[in-house]
Amino acid sequence: MVDFQAILNRIYQDAKAVKDKGVVASYIPELAHVDPEAFGMHLRTSEGEKYGVGDFDKLFSIQSISKVFALSKAMALIGDAIWKRVDVEPSGNPYNFLALLEIENSIPRNPFINSGAIVIADILLSNLKNPKADFLSYVRELAGDSSINYNEEVAYSEKNTGFKNYASANLLKSFNNLENPVDAVLDFYFHQCAIEMSCSQLSKAFYLFANKGSCMQQKQHISNQQVKRINALMLTCGFYDEAGEFAFEVGLPGKSGVGGGIAALLPDQFVISVWSPGLNKKGNSKLGVHALEQFTTKAKLSIF
Amino acid sequence: MVDFQAILNRIYQDAKAVKDKGVVASYIPELAHVDPEAFGMHLRTSEGEKYGVGDFDKLFSIQSISKVFALSKAMALIGDAIWKRVDVEPSGNPYNFLALLEIENSIPRNPFINSGAIVIADILLSNLKNPKADFLSYVRELAGDSSINYNEEVAYSEKNTGFKNYASANLLKSFNNLENPVDAVLDFYFHQCAIEMSCSQLSKAFYLFANKGSCMQQKQHISNQQVKRINALMLTCGFYDEAGEFAFEVGLPGKSGVGGGIAALLPDQFVISVWSPGLNKKGNSKLGVHALEQFTTKAKLSIF
Amino acid sequence: MVDFQAILNRIYQDAKAVKDKGVVASYIPELAHVDPEAFGMHLRTSEGEKYGVGDFDKLFSIQSISKVFALSKAMALIGDAIWKRVDVEPSGNPYNFLALLEIENSIPRNPFINSGAIVIADILLSNLKNPKADFLSYVRELAGDSSINYNEEVAYSEKNTGFKNYASANLLKSFNNLENPVDAVLDFYFHQCAIEMSCSQLSKAFYLFANKGSCMQQKQHISNQQVKRINALMLTCGFYDEAGEFAFEVGLPGKSGVGGGIAALLPDQFVISVWSPGLNKKGNSKLGVHALEQFTTKAKLSIF
Amino acid sequence: MVDFQAILNRIYQDAKAVKDKGVVASYIPELAHVDPEAFGMHLRTSEGEKYGVGDFDKLFSIQSISKVFALSKAMALIGDAIWKRVDVEPSGNPYNFLALLEIENSIPRNPFINSGAIVIADILLSNLKNPKADFLSYVRELAGDSSINYNEEVAYSEKNTGFKNYASANLLKSFNNLENPVDAVLDFYFHQCAIEMSCSQLSKAFYLFANKGSCMQQKQHISNQQVKRINALMLTCGFYDEAGEFAFEVGLPGKSGVGGGIAALLPDQFVISVWSPGLNKKGNSKLGVHALEQFTTKAKLSIF
Repeated sequence: MVDFQAILNRIYQDAKAVKDKGVVASYIPELAHVDPEAFGMHLRTSEGEKYGVGDFDKLFSIQSISKVFALSKAMALIGDAIWKRVDVEPSGNPYNFLALLEIENSIPRNPFINSGAIVIADILLSNLKNPKADFLSYVRELAGDSSINYNEEVAYSEKNTGFKNYASANLLKSFNNLENPVDAVLDFYFHQCAIEMSCSQLSKAFYLFANKGSCMQQKQHISNQQVKRINALMLTCGFYDEAGEFAFEVGLPGKSGVGGGIAALLPDQFVISVWSPGLNKKGNSKLGVHALEQFTTKAKLSIF
Repeated sequence: MVDFQAILNRIYQDAKAVKDKGVVASYIPELAHVDPEAFGMHLRTSEGEKYGVGDFDKLFSIQSISKVFALSKAMALIGDAIWKRVDVEPSGNPYNFLALLEIENSIPRNPFINSGAIVIADILLSNLKNPKADFLSYVRELAGDSSINYNEEVAYSEKNTGFKNYASANLLKSFNNLENPVDAVLDFYFHQCAIEMSCSQLSKAFYLFANKGSCMQQKQHISNQQVKRINALMLTCGFYDEAGEFAFEVGLPGKSGVGGGIAALLPDQFVISVWSPGLNKKGNSKLGVHALEQFTTKAKLSIF
Repeated sequence: MVDFQAILNRIYQDAKAVKDKGVVASYIPELAHVDPEAFGMHLRTSEGEKYGVGDFDKLFSIQSISKVFALSKAMALIGDAIWKRVDVEPSGNPYNFLALLEIENSIPRNPFINSGAIVIADILLSNLKNPKADFLSYVRELAGDSSINYNEEVAYSEKNTGFKNYASANLLKSFNNLENPVDAVLDFYFHQCAIEMSCSQLSKAFYLFANKGSCMQQKQHISNQQVKRINALMLTCGFYDEAGEFAFEVGLPGKSGVGGGIAALLPDQFVISVWSPGLNKKGNSKLGVHALEQFTTKAKLSIF
Repeated sequence: MVDFQAILNRIYQDAKAVKDKGVVASYIPELAHVDPEAFGMHLRTSEGEKYGVGDFDKLFSIQSISKVFALSKAMALIGDAIWKRVDVEPSGNPYNFLALLEIENSIPRNPFINSGAIVIADILLSNLKNPKADFLSYVRELAGDSSINYNEEVAYSEKNTGFKNYASANLLKSFNNLENPVDAVLDFYFHQCAIEMSCSQLSKAFYLFANKGSCMQQKQHISNQQVKRINALMLTCGFYDEAGEFAFEVGLPGKSGVGGGIAALLPDQFVISVWSPGLNKKGNSKLGVHALEQFTTKAKLSIF
């Protein structure tokens, strides 16, 4: 029997001792204000056991982690019709994201690169009655927590500085891969990324991905087949240009965000969330990646 | 002694007889409304002789031909400082224009591809008191014709459909190669492209490029050195992905636009303008290119 | 308890009934001679149980499946020094493999794309005394079968038609990422790909990847950590531009070859091999991919 | 009346005084042995006047300048059939030359980038009886000088270090744009580049390009139309990634080589050759470009 709490405690001590905690994302002033020393980790098993350490109840900007919620909602709404507008293959290099879009006729490589997530946002915008309210309700329902909210200042900041996302969205629009106006799609997308959650909330909200599509309230949101698709995508595409490294080092499907959060899971076993704001060179939480690596090594629990 | 009028007459007859006149640009409704049978040509020699044929006094949308006026004005305003923000090399392939921008840190390859022209528009916006009014005055002064104007409907149309230009501008902005807001820059740029002129007006307005920088009113707008720079750029970059072909077939520095116009010149000799709305596959006026090729062959006047 | 034989029998019946079996690779005459109707499948569990169906004992050209053997041998020989010369990230698009090499200074994206496998071949050439003999011995030892051999005609054919591999290798050489002469490296590489094995031999030879690095003869060839690395690479990069799709549809680490073979595994559970020469548009065995998908669905055994 | 000798003298004095003479090409040992202080310049007018300064009679490796001779011979042999296999557009960026080849189905952008010149070499190989001997005879005939020869050591050196050219040639071969074996084509190509000539010999050999296709011995090798094509290509593509800059600074069609030579011309007026081994960052002779710029400025003779 694995002593999860002891493992988390050890990881926490090690993390506290590390001097180079990476670089906090600064392209949005709101993100730059965060405490670089913050560190939280939370584990929830399929049997309902919970383990936490550090700032596991503190809110942070989930950013790209939200793409997993958006994808799952879009799949619930329109099913496989998604795959006509976005592919499922790893993307590799982020530096020429627009180049790939141009060459591949504006079909983004997968739903987790920004251009792909913008297409998903467009799908939600077309298929939800009150897109922002409905999406927030969905995330709240998954987490069983109605206190979850958008940080409007973060959303507003991205709107004023997200020039590359505007470039992507306009290119998608020029190829007819956006149904709604660029500004409306990005307003939704920036809000989606600006949701704030804690590690413990993320562990609850990701529960369905470790539980065949059924959330903690036993509601079946997506099929088991769809969960497998999402987990495969997280494993192959969830960590920008570090997906291959993460698949090896950690060995779990997961998704990171530039806010420093990572949520990962082992099907039928557990969800684990970690938050440490400093990023490595690839844009993933430096200590977060390391913590998950330590966890799967010590707990001997991974998909490989 | 060359009989220019006879040559123009012959070209006009040949053009009228051609059945496949190319495809009129349709991405803007206002451009699509034009008469595909229209054909005009106008020649003005350095001695002041004028020759015209067909619809040489009819107005059309000059579109990218305006980039030459914009470049000359920017050079007059800030000189060689331009070349820190845009390069002078041919670009070749249009299909991955954004890719090139990304890889080359958002320094557009030359001032005649769209991204380069957007940077030039940004320079004018920063250096003119009343950008739109001042730029129009400049073109009117060059042509000695105060009736020249913007077509607001064309400008407005581009604003609502120019997604690729929005993509380019946002990418430039993300790399800090635009000083002004994207919307302001593109509003100016779309107006600049929406100027309407006739062949005879273009022949007058291009006079300074064949006359060492001095316009028809004997005002020195730019130096002879700057004229050479502009002419070299027109020869190597003036015709999208057909610059090499045009340099050979016609052998004159020139600039085309998707409105079907082309203005070209032989230094110290003449300016020649042609308009035929149907485009070839490379986006240049199909009959226009052919007419200029016939002209330089028959007149035995080219730079090579 | 899963009835593996029944599942294999059912898959075999289904496969036989399929009319469109894909297109047999024809770029090498020797590969084109194969019977397009051939179909074999073999499963070996960690407990030593064996199940086979169809042509599971018939030899075929393993082609790119050999890259897994080569990688494991190179890791055994020089360990993490490999990763200075080849990366571990998915590559996505095959159409511009050389472009990526150029931009990324000739560090191939991963050891399973051709350029990466050529670097691994160079490493083996530098670190084995008798490269071709030693590598064959290694594969024979893994499979516990000394009858395994190179098909010299296939190797020779590739030598005369593998122009893209020569292009890759010369580009790698120009960036100093090959120690040995291009011809020597490719001679070894073409031989490596020209090994012939049957499904049952592959199931034995892949045993170490499902068994923490220890082969069927209980010899520890590589560490458990190294096995995890290889399995993660197979999952993210093992199927050309279809890795994401395979990860989802099948949910097992695996590697395919243009000879129509696929070897896959579930850690601590089983190795499964399949062979059907017809390929789908992505270059993977059409019926092979489908068979593995059916298997994991029916057996309810996958990593997700 | 321009005093050409006085201009050349002045340029020579200025060149001698420059301290930073650029960097001599060192990728081939034979090229690196050259005296970095060498400087020669030679002018030949259409009236037959000759002017020289410095080392204008010293031999150097013409390298890429040979591509103009090869192109003209290929045009003489098979005419416009060339343009099915190579395009006429500027290429811009050299860093991803292979990428362009891949995307554009192995039709090189123009005959002066290496891949294009390799296709031309293949054409010569297919259409000359004794390719190396016949090509040398052609160059000797153009220059009216039977002493011109290949430097076998330079050719041999390139054979052993020209990995990028091998990469290009193999890629062309894989797309069926080479008729002959890669090794045979490159053997011819490396010899072609290894011809040694002096400035005065180059001025004679380039005479036909300033004289409507007729060489100094009054033999018509190519048509005036073909000369225009070649001159347009030299102007738009003759100077690697510096063609646009050269077109402006110098304003003459010309071709440079990494041996430090440049040959340029003004149609119906003169041919001018310069040699200074040190290269600028773009790979063109640093003092050579500067010398030609000074010449056209002082002589007020250019195409613009």
